[in-house]
Amino acid sequence: MKQESLLDQVIEAFRCLPGVGPKSAQRMLLYLLERDRDGGRRLALVLTEAMQKIGNCRTCRNLTEAEMCGICSDKGRESTVLCVVETPADVIAIEQSASYRGQYFVLMGTLSPIEGRGPQEIGVEQLVERCQSGINEVIIAVSSTVEGEATAYYIAEALKSLSVTVSRIAQGIPLGGELEFVDGGTLSHAIEGRTIV
Amino acid sequence: MKQESLLDQVIEAFRCLPGVGPKSAQRMLLYLLERDRDGGRRLALVLTEAMQKIGNCRTCRNLTEAEMCGICSDKGRESTVLCVVETPADVIAIEQSASYRGQYFVLMGTLSPIEGRGPQEIGVEQLVERCQSGINEVIIAVSSTVEGEATAYYIAEALKSLSVTVSRIAQGIPLGGELEFVDGGTLSHAIEGRTIV
Repeated sequence: MKQESLLDQVIEAFRCLPGVGPKSAQRMLLYLLERDRDGGRRLALVLTEAMQKIGNCRTCRNLTEAEMCGICSDKGRESTVLCVVETPADVIAIEQSASYRGQYFVLMGTLSPIEGRGPQEIGVEQLVERCQSGINEVIIAVSSTVEGEATAYYIAEALKSLSVTVSRIAQGIPLGGELEFVDGGTLSHAIEGRTIV
Repeated sequence: MKQESLLDQVIEAFRCLPGVGPKSAQRMLLYLLERDRDGGRRLALVLTEAMQKIGNCRTCRNLTEAEMCGICSDKGRESTVLCVVETPADVIAIEQSASYRGQYFVLMGTLSPIEGRGPQEIGVEQLVERCQSGINEVIIAVSSTVEGEATAYYIAEALKSLSVTVSRIAQGIPLGGELEFVDGGTLSHAIEGRTIV
């Protein structure tokens, strides 16, 4: 086995997946070879297609194989509310919560000078442009991290001159969370943001 | 998003991998799309090739893309000792322990009437035939599970009439442990301390 065998090549290739080390990679390949070749073939097929065809929606920047994603081209959704999120995974999470029926704008990251992402990279200019055509409210739904806060602040500033309402999703204790185990920062936000019942 | 999008199809396809649920599948796809398209392309390419080309070695039944695997065709290895293992993963584990330089025979499972694997399925006939040509010793290195013990017993019985020494690797391997996950040092000891049956 001097030259790298096909088995070794596939095991190495599997390691490009997040959270997959040499042992998992080997287990995945052997599993497919021994028990599910059809599944492996299908995975390879759709993966090739995805890597080639999936790009960004020209309206919201979300990942899609079409020029415009399914959400942007859905005429049944509210067209005046825009939700700004960091990643495609956030769009999926919000959609699964079934609590929002408006439009999205995906930043594809937060502002991060260290990683070389400035306003250009997260599409602030495109967002401002988008907000000038029929959008009444922009909901900023970025993560509550240092980078997220900075990004939210930057976006709110950029939208200030426009005639749109800018809001941020509420910060507070998570549903089902025991107050006792909630961290101090979250608690102070929750108390500060209390609502009259 | 009425019809299944390409994204959904790939996420579904990723779930054929062992230990990958919907959340991991989504994370894997989004990671590849956002950060490592080349890795994704390469994975799809070698995976297609593997699913198509990898079959069983005609001599030892191990997985290989050639007619005869790298170990069987390696002239530098001892040709008189044969190690019987359950799975290709076991061969990899023993090779990594660097404690064995002989031949292999891969059963591709244990005897298991419940799962419909009898002597035919684990290739006992082929093993007996193989042992009649130049093999002096057969080391049975199956897992120390109930099915493994039964399989070892069956194989030892089948080889009784031949003029080969049949041994089993020592019970240095942890009881109930799967061979695949045993560390190299333990495997070394187990092979060294094999006992004549």
